[in-house]
Amino acid sequence: MTDRNTPASGEDSLIARYFRPMATDPGAFDLGDDAAILEAVGDDIVVTTDAIVEGVHFLFDDPPDTIARKALRVNLSDLAAKGATPAGFVLTLALRAADDAWLTPFARGLGEDAALFNCPLLGGDTVSTPGPLMISITAFGRVPPGKMIHRSGAKPGDRVVVTGTIGDAALGLDVLRGGAIAAVFAGDAAAREMLVGRYRIPQPRTRLAKAVRDHASAAMDVSDGLAGDLAKLCTASGVSAVIDAPSIPLSAAAAALLARGAVGIEAVVSGGDDYEILCAIPESRCEAFAEAARAAGVAVTSIGTVIADTSAPRFLDGEGRDIALKHLSYSHF
Amino acid sequence: MTDRNTPASGEDSLIARYFRPMATDPGAFDLGDDAAILEAVGDDIVVTTDAIVEGVHFLFDDPPDTIARKALRVNLSDLAAKGATPAGFVLTLALRAADDAWLTPFARGLGEDAALFNCPLLGGDTVSTPGPLMISITAFGRVPPGKMIHRSGAKPGDRVVVTGTIGDAALGLDVLRGGAIAAVFAGDAAAREMLVGRYRIPQPRTRLAKAVRDHASAAMDVSDGLAGDLAKLCTASGVSAVIDAPSIPLSAAAAALLARGAVGIEAVVSGGDDYEILCAIPESRCEAFAEAARAAGVAVTSIGTVIADTSAPRFLDGEGRDIALKHLSYSHF
Repeated sequence: MTDRNTPASGEDSLIARYFRPMATDPGAFDLGDDAAILEAVGDDIVVTTDAIVEGVHFLFDDPPDTIARKALRVNLSDLAAKGATPAGFVLTLALRAADDAWLTPFARGLGEDAALFNCPLLGGDTVSTPGPLMISITAFGRVPPGKMIHRSGAKPGDRVVVTGTIGDAALGLDVLRGGAIAAVFAGDAAAREMLVGRYRIPQPRTRLAKAVRDHASAAMDVSDGLAGDLAKLCTASGVSAVIDAPSIPLSAAAAALLARGAVGIEAVVSGGDDYEILCAIPESRCEAFAEAARAAGVAVTSIGTVIADTSAPRFLDGEGRDIALKHLSYSHF
Repeated sequence: MTDRNTPASGEDSLIARYFRPMATDPGAFDLGDDAAILEAVGDDIVVTTDAIVEGVHFLFDDPPDTIARKALRVNLSDLAAKGATPAGFVLTLALRAADDAWLTPFARGLGEDAALFNCPLLGGDTVSTPGPLMISITAFGRVPPGKMIHRSGAKPGDRVVVTGTIGDAALGLDVLRGGAIAAVFAGDAAAREMLVGRYRIPQPRTRLAKAVRDHASAAMDVSDGLAGDLAKLCTASGVSAVIDAPSIPLSAAAAALLARGAVGIEAVVSGGDDYEILCAIPESRCEAFAEAARAAGVAVTSIGTVIADTSAPRFLDGEGRDIALKHLSYSHF
């Protein structure tokens, strides 16, 4: 669309200027139409939607490119946990103003991630708001018919497995807020930056999607805290789980904080924003899953076992004693 | 998901309480998973996304059920204009608080419309915001492969056709704001209510979708003002158009306002929020299209002709003189 014949609205110009370059899918029609197409090619389309709000999911002074990356990646994390390959996304951007100094790095970060994860922009809507910035993304993935992995499906005897490390993002948020952890790491910029990076830029485990699809009996991403999300998976599956807390994979920074008593285990397992995959793997599939994870370059760790019970999942310490958790997860309301 | 084993988060409870009843599609998994499925059945999936913001697209004291209906219907309007049959939608709801007095009628209105338009809720995300309410919906429709109707495709000689009546919603917003039109209709509650109703509750032309798909060479919905949206359709198609302004279908109230000079034609053709379908119909298809529209119970009116030109579309008055339009449409930025 050109501006030659008609004075294009500011909104059209904004979309064209900032976002068209990442609309590389033919179904996006260069963002020049009112809708996009996900072509029928025999796959089921997996749909997920997640929004992030200034002051809630990101901070006012977070770098705009990291805000864009987080908005997309929290959705990519859902797709990976469902065993789906990214197919594209639509974006709703609620802005106070069309501020070039903010939009330029935002669009750059979003475009780089769209390319990195092979998840092109399909369409969007930009609206003005007098309130906090908000970015809502609906992302699409493809799975062979009927092959999406659900929260339900975990069976007694399955291993409970997580990717990456748990708890870093919540600790990173504390650093950004100048909390106790910032003080602990006052002399360790590398640790502070690692934790903050984990909060600002999730690492969706897209490369693990096929292994999850091939081997997991149930899966979800850990976004609101491992303890609460595990409880959700167990409830959906009609099972419970026993977790060996010392097995939970930690970064060196998180391990150091726990070791010196600067934080308790609850801060790690209930903090949220991990965007790792939590899944149940049948014993017979564990070896093949671990092999596929190695091939994908994603660390996976067995942290416990699914059991036939309907009580809440238990977290046991190194001596096999129950750890009492007051809060399981972050909740908006 | 039950609350028996685990203290469900407030967010889970909110979704379960208010929105699960409208998640009737098997692909929604009762909103109990992290993603939904649009099943592969050989159709292309048409995707559209539109957000509405308190204070911008709706007013603080609009009835919550009408806000819900508008949020869904602006998206259904896009689907209809693309020739697509509704397949479902996902919802992002940014709320200041989980206020039962607001959420109950909101969910009721949304559920009624989801049923009315056969467009079930597939999933969603509720987030807290300190700012204005915002509702972002991404809606899905189905078309046979390759059959989505585009903005591009209009050819010289095609008739320019619109559904319903144009301009009422913008006039209704003026009534709500206590503007000049409210004063004109001070003694005519029926006229005021009709105009306000047109602003608050769009009438997506879903029943016309198949006729559009079968006969239109190009189409889009009129959301930002007929003049501006026609210019967009023409630009995308590489054509222009000549519109006979007296042919533009008006409600009795809008016609009365124009006749007495209370508003000019610009308020009607540039006001926005119409959510009617604007389409180009080849001459040879006009009769069949009109017949299909009659069968669907949707009024359609030919208002002009597509011409081979690249200048802006012209609006002519009853004497064939050009009408100068300062503003073509509403723009957020």
